[in-house]
Order: sequence, then C-alpha cells, then structure tokens
Amino acid sequence: MKTSPFHLLMNPQSIATVGAGNNPMKMGTIQALSIVQDGFKGPFYPIHPRDSEVFGYKAYQSAFDLPEAPDLVMFVLPAPLVVKILDDFGSIGTKRAIIITAGFRETGPGGEELEKLLKEVARKHGIRFVGPNCMGVINSSLPLNVTVAPISPQPGPLGMVSQSGTYITQTLPYLNRRGIRFSKAISVGNEADLDLTDALEYLGEDEKTKAIALYIEGIRDGGKFIKAARKITPHKPIVAQYVGGSVAGARAGSSHTGAMAGPDFIYDGLFRQCGILRVDTVEELYNQSWVLANQPPLRGRRIGVLTNSGGPGTAMAHICNEGGLDVPPFSGKLHDSIKKVIPPHGSAANPVDLTFHMDAEVLSTTLPELVMESGEVDGIVMHGLMSSGFLKAIYPHLGPVTGGLSEGELLKRFDRDLSKPVLLPFKHGIPMVISSFFGREDNYTAYYQDSGIPVFDGPEKAARGMLALHRYGKIQKREPYLKPELPPRSEEASAIIAEAVAKGQEALDEYSSKAVLQAYGVPLGEEKLVFTLEEALSAADSIGYPLVLKGCSPEITHKTGTGLVQLAINNSHAFEKAYSKVIEAAGKDIPVLVAKMIHGDREVMAGMARYPGFGPSVLFGLGGIFAEALEDRVFRIAPLSPADAVEMISGINAAALLGEYRGLPAVNQRALGSILQAVSSAALLHPEIAEIDLNPIIIRDREPVAVDALIVLDRPG
Amino acid sequence: MKTSPFHLLMNPQSIATVGAGNNPMKMGTIQALSIVQDGFKGPFYPIHPRDSEVFGYKAYQSAFDLPEAPDLVMFVLPAPLVVKILDDFGSIGTKRAIIITAGFRETGPGGEELEKLLKEVARKHGIRFVGPNCMGVINSSLPLNVTVAPISPQPGPLGMVSQSGTYITQTLPYLNRRGIRFSKAISVGNEADLDLTDALEYLGEDEKTKAIALYIEGIRDGGKFIKAARKITPHKPIVAQYVGGSVAGARAGSSHTGAMAGPDFIYDGLFRQCGILRVDTVEELYNQSWVLANQPPLRGRRIGVLTNSGGPGTAMAHICNEGGLDVPPFSGKLHDSIKKVIPPHGSAANPVDLTFHMDAEVLSTTLPELVMESGEVDGIVMHGLMSSGFLKAIYPHLGPVTGGLSEGELLKRFDRDLSKPVLLPFKHGIPMVISSFFGREDNYTAYYQDSGIPVFDGPEKAARGMLALHRYGKIQKREPYLKPELPPRSEEASAIIAEAVAKGQEALDEYSSKAVLQAYGVPLGEEKLVFTLEEALSAADSIGYPLVLKGCSPEITHKTGTGLVQLAINNSHAFEKAYSKVIEAAGKDIPVLVAKMIHGDREVMAGMARYPGFGPSVLFGLGGIFAEALEDRVFRIAPLSPADAVEMISGINAAALLGEYRGLPAVNQRALGSILQAVSSAALLHPEIAEIDLNPIIIRDREPVAVDALIVLDRPG
Repeated sequence: MKTSPFHLLMNPQSIATVGAGNNPMKMGTIQALSIVQDGFKGPFYPIHPRDSEVFGYKAYQSAFDLPEAPDLVMFVLPAPLVVKILDDFGSIGTKRAIIITAGFRETGPGGEELEKLLKEVARKHGIRFVGPNCMGVINSSLPLNVTVAPISPQPGPLGMVSQSGTYITQTLPYLNRRGIRFSKAISVGNEADLDLTDALEYLGEDEKTKAIALYIEGIRDGGKFIKAARKITPHKPIVAQYVGGSVAGARAGSSHTGAMAGPDFIYDGLFRQCGILRVDTVEELYNQSWVLANQPPLRGRRIGVLTNSGGPGTAMAHICNEGGLDVPPFSGKLHDSIKKVIPPHGSAANPVDLTFHMDAEVLSTTLPELVMESGEVDGIVMHGLMSSGFLKAIYPHLGPVTGGLSEGELLKRFDRDLSKPVLLPFKHGIPMVISSFFGREDNYTAYYQDSGIPVFDGPEKAARGMLALHRYGKIQKREPYLKPELPPRSEEASAIIAEAVAKGQEALDEYSSKAVLQAYGVPLGEEKLVFTLEEALSAADSIGYPLVLKGCSPEITHKTGTGLVQLAINNSHAFEKAYSKVIEAAGKDIPVLVAKMIHGDREVMAGMARYPGFGPSVLFGLGGIFAEALEDRVFRIAPLSPADAVEMISGINAAALLGEYRGLPAVNQRALGSILQAVSSAALLHPEIAEIDLNPIIIRDREPVAVDALIVLDRPG
Repeated sequence: MKTSPFHLLMNPQSIATVGAGNNPMKMGTIQALSIVQDGFKGPFYPIHPRDSEVFGYKAYQSAFDLPEAPDLVMFVLPAPLVVKILDDFGSIGTKRAIIITAGFRETGPGGEELEKLLKEVARKHGIRFVGPNCMGVINSSLPLNVTVAPISPQPGPLGMVSQSGTYITQTLPYLNRRGIRFSKAISVGNEADLDLTDALEYLGEDEKTKAIALYIEGIRDGGKFIKAARKITPHKPIVAQYVGGSVAGARAGSSHTGAMAGPDFIYDGLFRQCGILRVDTVEELYNQSWVLANQPPLRGRRIGVLTNSGGPGTAMAHICNEGGLDVPPFSGKLHDSIKKVIPPHGSAANPVDLTFHMDAEVLSTTLPELVMESGEVDGIVMHGLMSSGFLKAIYPHLGPVTGGLSEGELLKRFDRDLSKPVLLPFKHGIPMVISSFFGREDNYTAYYQDSGIPVFDGPEKAARGMLALHRYGKIQKREPYLKPELPPRSEEASAIIAEAVAKGQEALDEYSSKAVLQAYGVPLGEEKLVFTLEEALSAADSIGYPLVLKGCSPEITHKTGTGLVQLAINNSHAFEKAYSKVIEAAGKDIPVLVAKMIHGDREVMAGMARYPGFGPSVLFGLGGIFAEALEDRVFRIAPLSPADAVEMISGINAAALLGEYRGLPAVNQRALGSILQAVSSAALLHPEIAEIDLNPIIIRDREPVAVDALIVLDRPG
C-alpha cells in the first residue's frame, strides 16, 4: 500500500535524529542507537547543538546544515523545542516524522496548545507524523528499529499497533525470550496526526504482516476504524485488547495518551462487528496473534492432543471442549497404531499420553505423523517436547551415573535433527500449537519457535492458541460484508421530529415515537390516539378487547406505576373507569393511546444511544422484567448490515429463547432484524434523535410487536 | 498434624528405593538421585537385584538384607513386581511407601486387579502409601525430593497436591525460573490408599505451608473433601484448578489416573461452598496461591497502581476494577507529593505513571513509601521495576557511548541495595504484587521474588494476584460454618415414599411429591386433590377462583402441552369444561389437583440430583420460561447450612431480581433458603429419592410458593 503515509515513514532511505546525543542514560540516545546498531542501512544524520559527532556519526547543528532532506526525522528533545525544529525540517523538504517526545496533550491545556501548533506546522509542510508521546516504530525487514531495545535479527510475521509504547519496546526482550517476532510495530502515542487506524490500514496491506495485534485504550473515529478493520479481517486476522472500559481504565488511558475511552460493551460489539478477536491480557494478545500469523488455518473442529503427561493433556482437552472444539476418541485403527509406539501403561486414546519418555522421536515425529495421516484430526495441540532444557536441569543430579560425561556430551547424545518434524503442520495443512514448561534454554522450544510453530509456557495457552484459529475460521466463514443501503428519509418522521424540536421538547410522546419508527418499518400493535372518551370508546370497539390505555404526552417518558397506564381492560365498563383513571393521573385532559393488549411469551428490547467517536450504537437484548437484572444485551455500531442484525439476535445469552423453545415457534428473526435496522436507519437519518428505546418488543406467535417506544431528542447546546 | 499418615511419609528418617539403578536413562534412577543429591540426610538403602552399589551407596538384594526397617520405601520397578516386594517391606516393619510405578487401575481390568492386591498387602501390614502411578513428593525443609527434577535449595511457603505428577515435577525448573517454591508437594497418582483429601488435610495443618494449590481431575469422596476443605479455608487459603468437567476432560482424566470426574457445575459449587478459590489455568494456580502464601492480607478495596508506563498501568487498573477493587484517585496532598518526585510529563494520579526513568529508587522506594504512608491504599500493584535485565538487553547497542565500560561495570553502576524496599509490604501490612517483562535475569525480579514479593510476567497477572487476596478476604469474612442439623424424618413422607416404592413407581405424583416436600417446610399454594367432579367443584368453592386443574398420577411427570393442565379458570362454567378436558386427556378417571392459580412477577426453581462421589446436590436457579435458555443456576452439596442457602440465592446472575426490583418488594430470602434446605433434608433423609424438581417456584408478593413439584425415585438395580 504505497499510498499509505506510513509507507515512507516505515521505509525511509535516510533518517535524522533530533535530541539524541552521547549520554547513554537518556532514552533518546538508546533509541537512536537502536537505529544504527540494529542495521539501518541508509544515511544517519544526528542533529546536535554542541557535539560534532554522535555515536561516531557526523553531527549537524540544524536541519539546514544537512547534505540532503532526510526521509524521516525522529524527535527526542524536550517538547517546547519540537515545533520550531519540525518547521526547519519541513522547510528543507522532509515529509515524515516520529515524535517520541512527551509533554503534549496528555499533560493538560498547555500541552494541548503545543500539540495544536505541532499539527499546524506539519500541515503547512505536508509532513505526516507519528506521536508525539510515542515509543517509536519497528520495520524488521528494512531493518529499522527506533525503540529502546534490540530486535531479533530474524524478521517475523506479526504486525502490531499499540497505544502503549511499552508493548513494542519494553517487551522486546520478553518477546525474544518467547520467540515472537514483529514484521512491523508502531507505537502511535497521542495520535496527533497518524492514528491507530492509519497504522492498522497500513499493516492490513503489508505483505510481510500475516496477523495484526492491537493494544487499544480508546478509538477516536469509530467509523473509520470499522471500515478499515472490516476490509482486513476476511483475509488477515486481527486480535485486540481493550482496557479503557472500566472507570479506572478510562481515567488511566486518558492521562496516558489522552485517548478517549468508551464503555466496554461498545468496544465488545465493535470488535465482533469487525471480526476482530478480543483478548483479555497482553500475553494472549501476543500469543493468539502469533499463532494466527504462523500456522495454517484450522479446517474443522477435531483436535488431537498429544502429550507425555496426563495433567497437561486433560487441561488442553478441557479448554478445547469449552471453546467449542472436539477432542474425539480415535478410531480403533489409529488407536492400535499408536498403542504400538507408546509404552504399555501409556494411553493411546485422544488425548494421547506417552508418559515420561526419553526418546523424543515418538512425540516429535511418529505420533504427529500417524495422527495427521489418519485424517482424523484438523489440528494438534501437544505438550511435553523437551530435551536440553530438561537435561540441563537434571544434569547436576546425574553426577554418580554419567560416567564422567560432560553436560555438553550429554546434550549431544540426545541431539536430534528437527528439520523434518517442524515441517509437518505446513506439509499437511494441519495447525499445531505446543505447550512446554521449558523456554528457549531447551533446544526443542527454540527450534520449533524459530520454525513458526508456537510454543507457549502452559497447556491452556496452547489450547487457547488453537481456539484462536477456530474463532478466526468462523470469522472467515462470515458472509462478505455488504454496506447496507439507507432507506429514503421519511417526510412524515422528519415533520414529527421538526415539530417537536420547534416546540423545545426533550422527547417525543409515545405515539409520535412509534410513528417515527413505524415509518422505518418497526411493526406496532393495533392502536389509536384519542382525545375524548367518545373517540376512545369508538377506538375500543374497532380494535377489540383486551385493551391497554396509556396517557400520551411528551412530558411523560416513564409511565409505569403512575396510573397513566391501565392494562388488561376486558370490557367497556372497565374501559370507561380506566380512561378516567388515566386522565386523573395526568391531572389534565391529555391524548390517550388505545392499544390492543398484546400477549406473548417472550419479550426482547431494542434501543439506540450515541457514544462519542462512534455515533449511533444499536442495542438488542432480552426485554421485559428480566432485562435489568440480567443485562443480556449486545451492541453494534450503525449502520447495521442484515448480517450484523442476525449476529446481534444470536449473540445474546438467551438466544435459545428465540428459536423453537419449549413448544413455542421460532421467532421471525428477519422481522426482528428489520427492527434493529430500522432503529439504525432512524438514528442515522435523524441526527436530532439522541436515544431510542423500544422496550418491550413482545413476540406474538412468532412476530415481534413493539408495544412501547420512546425517542429522546438531542438537547440543544 | 502428627496423626496424619503423611507425617511419617513426608518426614522419614531412612529411605529404601526399589527399582532405581545406575542407568541414567531411567526415570526411577533420576528420582532416586533427587533424594540423595537434594540433601536427604538419613540412611539411603537402594534395593538392587544385581549391582552391589547404586550411586556409590551400598545396595541390598532384598528388604530382608537391610540393617533396619526404613521409614519409607519408594518403588519405581515394573508393576507386577511391586506387590511381592511391598509384602517383604511390610514383613520387616516399614510403614510408609511411595509407589511411582504405573500400570495399575489406569490401564484397565488387569491393572485394577493388581491394585487391589497392592491394597490388600498394604492393609495387612498397616502400610500407608501414595500412588501407584504418581511422581513422588517433596518436603523442602527436610529436605526430601523424590521427583525427577531438582528443587530450589531455599524452602518455600506453598503446599501443593496434584492429581498430575507433571505439576510438581516437570514444572520444577519452570517454577524455579519464576521464583515459586514449595513447602511440600504431593503427587497422589491413583490414590489407591492415601488420597487428595488426606494430603490436603495434612497440608492444612502443616505450619510451613501458608497456602495450598490443588490440581484436580476428580474427587472420589465429596463429603470427606468438603469437611477437610471447610476446616482449612478460614485460616489458610486453598486455590484449585479442576479440568474434568468437559467431555474430553473427563475421558482424559479417567485414562490418566482413573479419577472419577463430575460435571463442571458441581465442582464449581463445591469450591464456592468450601471457600476455595477456583482458577482456570495451571499458571494461575501457581501464581494466585503464591501471592496468598507470601503477602499480607488485603484489608480493603483501594489499590494503588504504580508504574513506569501507561499501558500496563491501564491494564492493571482495568483488571482491578473488573474484579471488584477500586483504583481511587489520590487526594490532592498525595498527588502533589508524588508530582514532586516524578518527571513533569509523568502522571501523579492513580495509576501513577513515572514514565521511562533510569533511577529505580523512585519506583522501588519513594513512591511505595509515599503511597503506603498516605493511608489511601490497601494494596499496591506495580509495573516497571527493572535494572540488570534491561541493561543486559540493551548493552550490545551501547558500544559507542559507554566509553569502554564493561557490562559488569555498567550493571554495578546501577546496583542498589534492595533490602529495605522489599520489606515495605510487610512493614505496612499492605500487600504488593509486581509485574515485570524481565525474568530472573533481572536483579530486581530475582531479589523481590526471593523476598516473598510476587513478580509475574504481565500486568494482568499481577492485578489478578491482588484479586486473589481480595477473594480470599471475602472468604475469611464469611460466618463460621455451622453444621446444619437435620430435621427429624417425617413419618408421613416416609409412608408416601414407601408406598410408591412398594408399588414399583418411578416417581411420585405431583400431589405426593408436594406432600413430601411440605413435610420439610416447602410452602405450597392452596390446593386439594379430588377424585370426582363433585369434589372438585366443592374444592373450587372453598379455594376460590382463579384456579388451575392438573391431572395427578405417578405416570404423569411432564404435563405441559398434553391437556392435563388447565390454567386460569375463572368461573364454575369454565371449571367444569376444564375438568372434563383433563379427564379426557388422561383417557381415564384419574385424581385431579385443584389449585389456586398463583400470580407473581418472578419465578425461580429448586432441585436435587445425586452425583457419584457427592451424594445429593441441591440446585437453585431462575425459573419459568427463561430457565432453560439462560441456565442461570448454582449448585451446592447437601447438607446445606443456612449460609450455603443464602450464598446460593445471591449467587445466580439474576440475583438483582430477587431484591427490591422495579417496584417489586424484596423476596423473602429466608423463606427461599428454607426451601433449599428442605430439599437438602428430604434428599438426605430419604435415600429412595433420586431427583427433586421444584419448577417454578412463584414469588407471590414477597413469598415463594412452590406450584409444581416432582420427586423421581431411585430405580432399583
């Protein structure tokens, strides 16, 4: 994607640094050193006010002294000096910058002002930049490393974008110890110019990047993010961690990069909508995206569990099962061939338990080959491959029985050629994830990791890696996203809203709310608005009992328990009494809604609210009395595609209730989906609508009927 | 607990091994080597058929050649030989054995027979033993290590019992690398004699053990386990992982140690009932129990988050919040004093973000002291302490700026005395858990770990460690467990059941079911059993409309949708019609239950089923139409204490529904609790009852009323 502003930023031919000097105690120095020490091949131009050389490179006093305009300039000097020098670089023609420097928007009003100036200067010169308050970028294939820690010399397939610099810098030694390698990594900092979504788009099209990990504290432009992510996830997996959804999380994120957090449920819906796999910890973020970046797809649900120990095998089988994968018993034939190669007290069932065994050939090669060739599994999780790690651990104990064999000689005796077994998953197209309690001090762990077979330090982590492939498989099977077409704006709805706005109403009355939503297809029960008892009685006759009466006025937004609602009216005598009760409760003559009493066994709800950065978000959930106690709700960002609506309906915990259920017919889910889309359309077409509440929607036979509705209007100012 | 058979087994004065020789490739050799190489101080007697020396120790051909009866004998020789030699040791007076050898019950009928013989021989001699098919034990303070891998020379405070040997053996190098050290660890294997619960009881009383970790694939005797665990958890925390609850998990566990698994929900209820913290992964099992074993209790909910990086700080705050802890903003005073010691662009709020900073004094000492002395927090989670790990990682980059400083000299320059900061949590009684992306290659990580301050490799893990303290704090605040007293056995209930059993019924009819439960206090609605229309009409008159009619016969266990139930009968005309419909649906004259139609807004359910190993388990859940779709249920093992019942009621997801809820009064929870206890009592007093089903229990005003009931009887044979 050569059109991305990131292309040049990540692939500069020449780099200048501003603020890095020869003081090894400064972070800027360490970051600039990473550029030259990790092998950047182009010219390196340190700008320094006093020193004539930095790291042995000729230093320049200012941009104007440089022999050429560098493709990229990196700033690590104090905030107040950045704007002026960026202007200098703009003047000589530099078009990309990385601004590591902190002390901008995240520090309050003064810093905000400075950040504004920074953006103005950049815009003036057409400079696109990352930061400020970021930790740099990595392009492992150039190579380019602008972070504090060394990168692995071997480029990797994992791309990462992070709103915390730590996760691509302080974690580099951690990642190296776990065999996880970046293709490209970008710390976006305050996102004054280029933001998380720009970086995501770039990685989406980057051929070296096979999966993308996102660490998110807040998304500024939800629509832009959704569009970008939706384009990527069908062909490249995205895994994300979001931590801004709790009170403290939001406060922390905002003081950190000034990110704008939103409620957790909005992000949860957003991720599902885009086909992004959400994880809860940064370790899972790395692990799951690493599996997705390396292993072939999981083509079915059948997992073979191969181990040298019952405990990890049981734990892996348990996690697979809980996540929707099967660990099927093997056929008699496969069982028998396994039985032949394992000790008599081992278990040839699935999980296979080789039991403690010094010959690693069986677990590394014989068993995976047997199982892969059987056609009985779609993926393998394995535990117990180990050699030098274990031998080194026990060597100090072996003294009396080794006959003077040195540790090195012992290791050599167990050394095996692993070049073939590590090809098995790729040869058979059957993914494999491994668990080992030995890290890279073990030759098996290191060799497998370096060959693209993930090895994690716990059985559950390996099984969860397999679950990530399963989850992503389901995302890839989703129907292609079709941008929903908005219906034409209803003139009737517009008129109702305009009138209410003109009158200064904070909300529409129930009748008007329903009329607006009906204009976009929300099905209502039989009902009439009446203004006198006479009209009411005539309406009752034409609708038929049982009936409900509701006082209807824009001031009345919560009617329950006030006498304004009279339920289950079965005859004209009761009707007249109920009518007077409503008028009495209102304290004046108000319009009254005469509505058929709708009976049904199931109730759901729909709604809409707007969240900063995301626009209208549509809610679907269990309705009626249980709604509040159970909070069984899902959210999606408008506009909703038909597929979005279907996923929402099947996404609540109580989804079983909406199918054929205890003698009830399956709910008309298309009709239910249309209600959600109508809510979405109404919100998008009428920005005056602040909130929509449809609760309950009663399922009559199999058809949803909205029996109550409220539209809250945007308060001016 | 010197009375525990484990006391001698874990503290032998002398040990014999059978089957260990000089072949370093055998697991038994490696295990026997661990005894002598890890410092066991008493006499070591290898039994060997041919060699005269093993590891340089004099070897004996048989037990009868030994100079004394060793306190403990360890078997690693093939299964068929074990029984005979155990008999020999019994004859000379040895009273404890560890049988590592596999090939017993877990391999099928032949092995089962062998295990039976083993038990018989042991019983004959009064030998108590661990295994077979186990991986040994560790007593780090003796020291005694009978596993394959070396233990840390420094004893630790964590006790572990595992149904997988791997978790106390193969993981030892893993645990050493993470600074986690056992006081005692026991691999229980097939539990032919001493079982998990015996080991748990022993660790409960062991003074060196400050917290207990359990890895469980299946509990054989639920009652014994509950009794032991309940005694321990008020004063010593227990953390458990259970993996037998899924289809594959159960199959795997059973082929592994022959453990008898049960449904996940039973174990979940069991753990809650006993006050055991449940975890999902073996890493959490180690981590959380390690925090509990080392840190002072968390006395409140206020957590201070101290970091050098916004990302980990945000993630830790998020996890704390989600788990019920607060990360409160600091007072102006504390904020200002923190502001003074951190860089200007850092954040002095909570979380504190020091930002990247080379002087570790601030994070290790100044900040924790300030925050602890403020009185504003009850616990601290910290991220970013690092020194030599980071310096070693970046040293290769620093060449041009170090002025020839060697790595060692550089490290020395940053070396600090950490002896005081590691005392802070203990001095202030404020627990601290740390996250670092650097392992023990970093001097801070190693020093803190060795001083009992947990350091985990991820921010979420540190925060979850703090949550473990919070969860355990709640367990310690529970009221002391009072063993519930069973009511006297009801003669009426006994008579009803006896009659049904005599008739060969598979179930009681609804009326009889209700009568049995009413005898133990379950409240019913107004209802009468009638046999003729005349009786029915008279019952209707005395009860009053609206009414329900239900055909009542032991053959009818599911009445819905068959015409046997007629609801909402409002007058005598409808009543007569409804009565004939019921008789018609039954196809013959059957007794009919005339019952008041109970109206209510909330429905719950209760029930009982028996699970092997656990006896009667009581269920409580959301009732009515939602029950099946939501599966909002909790389980406890009978007998239920009043506190158990209260915890069940507040334990469902929809618990809010049972309090004051949308204008409804709070449910009478004592009455609801009595129903659960009645179900528990009925099940315990009448072993003929296989299942009880009370669904729905309708809440009328605030009182629960059981409107349907079914008792299924145990099928003979």
